[in-house]
Amino acid sequence: MNFHTRKWIKPEDLNPNGTLFGGSLLRWIDEEAAIYAIIQLENPRIVTKYISEINFVSTAVQSDIIELGIMATKFGRTSLTMCCTVRNKISRKSILTIDEMVFVSVDENGRPKPHGKTEIHYDDSDRPDSAGPAAHS
Amino acid sequence: MNFHTRKWIKPEDLNPNGTLFGGSLLRWIDEEAAIYAIIQLENPRIVTKYISEINFVSTAVQSDIIELGIMATKFGRTSLTMCCTVRNKISRKSILTIDEMVFVSVDENGRPKPHGKTEIHYDDSDRPDSAGPAAHS
Amino acid sequence: MNFHTRKWIKPEDLNPNGTLFGGSLLRWIDEEAAIYAIIQLENPRIVTKYISEINFVSTAVQSDIIELGIMATKFGRTSLTMCCTVRNKISRKSILTIDEMVFVSVDENGRPKPHGKTEIHYDDSDRPDSAGPAAHS
Amino acid sequence: MNFHTRKWIKPEDLNPNGTLFGGSLLRWIDEEAAIYAIIQLENPRIVTKYISEINFVSTAVQSDIIELGIMATKFGRTSLTMCCTVRNKISRKSILTIDEMVFVSVDENGRPKPHGKTEIHYDDSDRPDSAGPAAHS
Amino acid sequence: MNFHTRKWIKPEDLNPNGTLFGGSLLRWIDEEAAIYAIIQLENPRIVTKYISEINFVSTAVQSDIIELGIMATKFGRTSLTMCCTVRNKISRKSILTIDEMVFVSVDENGRPKPHGKTEIHYDDSDRPDSAGPAAHS
Amino acid sequence: MNFHTRKWIKPEDLNPNGTLFGGSLLRWIDEEAAIYAIIQLENPRIVTKYISEINFVSTAVQSDIIELGIMATKFGRTSLTMCCTVRNKISRKSILTIDEMVFVSVDENGRPKPHGKTEIHYDDSDRPDSAGPAAHS
Repeated sequence: MNFHTRKWIKPEDLNPNGTLFGGSLLRWIDEEAAIYAIIQLENPRIVTKYISEINFVSTAVQSDIIELGIMATKFGRTSLTMCCTVRNKISRKSILTIDEMVFVSVDENGRPKPHGKTEIHYDDSDRPDSAGPAAHS
Repeated sequence: MNFHTRKWIKPEDLNPNGTLFGGSLLRWIDEEAAIYAIIQLENPRIVTKYISEINFVSTAVQSDIIELGIMATKFGRTSLTMCCTVRNKISRKSILTIDEMVFVSVDENGRPKPHGKTEIHYDDSDRPDSAGPAAHS
Repeated sequence: MNFHTRKWIKPEDLNPNGTLFGGSLLRWIDEEAAIYAIIQLENPRIVTKYISEINFVSTAVQSDIIELGIMATKFGRTSLTMCCTVRNKISRKSILTIDEMVFVSVDENGRPKPHGKTEIHYDDSDRPDSAGPAAHS
Repeated sequence: MNFHTRKWIKPEDLNPNGTLFGGSLLRWIDEEAAIYAIIQLENPRIVTKYISEINFVSTAVQSDIIELGIMATKFGRTSLTMCCTVRNKISRKSILTIDEMVFVSVDENGRPKPHGKTEIHYDDSDRPDSAGPAAHS
Repeated sequence: MNFHTRKWIKPEDLNPNGTLFGGSLLRWIDEEAAIYAIIQLENPRIVTKYISEINFVSTAVQSDIIELGIMATKFGRTSLTMCCTVRNKISRKSILTIDEMVFVSVDENGRPKPHGKTEIHYDDSDRPDSAGPAAHS
Repeated sequence: MNFHTRKWIKPEDLNPNGTLFGGSLLRWIDEEAAIYAIIQLENPRIVTKYISEINFVSTAVQSDIIELGIMATKFGRTSLTMCCTVRNKISRKSILTIDEMVFVSVDENGRPKPHGKTEIHYDDSDRPDSAGPAAHS
């Protein structure tokens, strides 16, 4: 699993108890999964259909940096299933995991539309060796 | 189940496809469940622990009014389990349901703390007959 | 008066002095009144026309839960007049009251349009007895 | 009356009908009045106490530029009364007027505190002639 | 240079270190420059083309009031060049300066469009002497 | 250069002309650079000091996916210089480039503090081969 989007926990992301507001985290995950699905299915029209159980393993506090990882696990006819991990960028401690997030490819009328994909699309920009001597943060 | 908080879908709540952004909806639900848990457990320190699978049944579009319903289903020693329904206020059409949302009561150090509650707390302000002749929107 | 929408005061809702920012509160009230008017007038096209004087009785601080109550007080030909109370959900202490908020029903060109309503519309979902043994939070 | 803060109406400021959301406008006004009061009273601790009736004369649409004008009208012992006008920057058409907005100077415990001011404080930066040949937008 | 828009630094504007988030400040500047350009060029369709180097001289903290000043420095055929200063409203201490911000006037297809302007447009509302006895905050 | 954070352009990110608001983009870049600097310097206390000229090469529209790339170019005693590229994730078309963004490491009192770093820190999570058979989006 590759980790792309990062967030720096700011005052506006906290709940009244001073820890990361769960609702903000869910919002970030949904956007990241949507982006991943759009790139894989090459269709900007996708909708969230199902999210399996979510375990909040640990939390984050102000000034933490977290990173979101998404990976495709199953290509259906019109759907894409992904798993998700969110962790602390520095300590690598897990914050949350989701086994299945299902998005569906739709047409301009919102009806399911076959996407024709069967495997993960490789993206050169994710191969640091192709861009220079080594991967870096 | 009683429905309290309502949302009026505005441009800022939409995904790029023009329908309600799933991440915004999840954020609203998490806040509503937190409010419900704080009131029931009479402890402002609560954290989201677990959310069971989420089915996105239908969506909402700009200018729709939706309402969020939460109901306690189980009182643990330190936890509270709730179910959630989101629906269109006008058409009553279901948008999303969640069977279990588990929040945990914690102390000032973030450790689980027994809450001593065993049943739903009745709230007079929710009894319209006590406030006048009839319930209204 | 029934109280529906609730808010959990988060860091993003505070003014620099650490109390609830008055502007945020006014924004929430305007949205709640709009929702109430849309439901009563059964017309999604409504505009804020007039708000009578506003008394800020007390404030709220981070982690407080507040609730907003709206009630129709007069049905005009194209307008609806409502009163509003905002209070602390736990202590029931009043935060703010507004005697008159006038919204006008408009057509697709923004011109006043008679709404044909003369009294408060009863909403079963607000009758807790119809949904089970008792009202709850 | 001088007009300072300006806003460019963006999608995030619209209500579902496509016009400026009244709640956003009220939020901007409250902030502008707070800024004006802090400058005049030379005390960063001020609270909104009272707002007289508000007439929404006309609305604004996406891409409009509006400007907010505030002027002190009365200096009390612990309070400051201001009037407010919001208008379209280009057409000069009035959007909203408020005759009285009362803010109170408070101490670190939130209790009213005499501010010792009796008249409007002049601000050189508002005198364009002191900054060059002429005023400009 | 005249200073118009003011901001009151609130918790939502801070970075995790408790000082003004640079990104928020850049966002405010871009909006203020856009507003200035629209008024000067009398064309609501303008795009940011170029920003010269930005020096962050000092920062701001919660409850500070800052003000943004913009002034046109050069009228091109389709462009407008402005300079910008942001400072603390009370202490007058400089927070940031930008020598050149270039915006371009475009037509409905996003192509550069001559604006026909050659000098700063005078705005009566900026002349406090025309509005009464004296300038004030 | 590796590209990490991605954004899905939503209605709330648009300027009134319907293209990506430059101010939103600058805000995202500042946050991404701050995250990169914190990771490289292993110090959460960093401040934006200088940004070299910014060229807005092209824009983005609703539903586009963009990605932000940052790379360290020079390690000073207390500073870190980075370059930045923002591009359309799908078309790879450049949106904006910045040659130099300088952040400074500070101590708890906000004074420059030597960071002791002299080269880019390698991060295993960026090496897709260590996580499985191949890089993917």
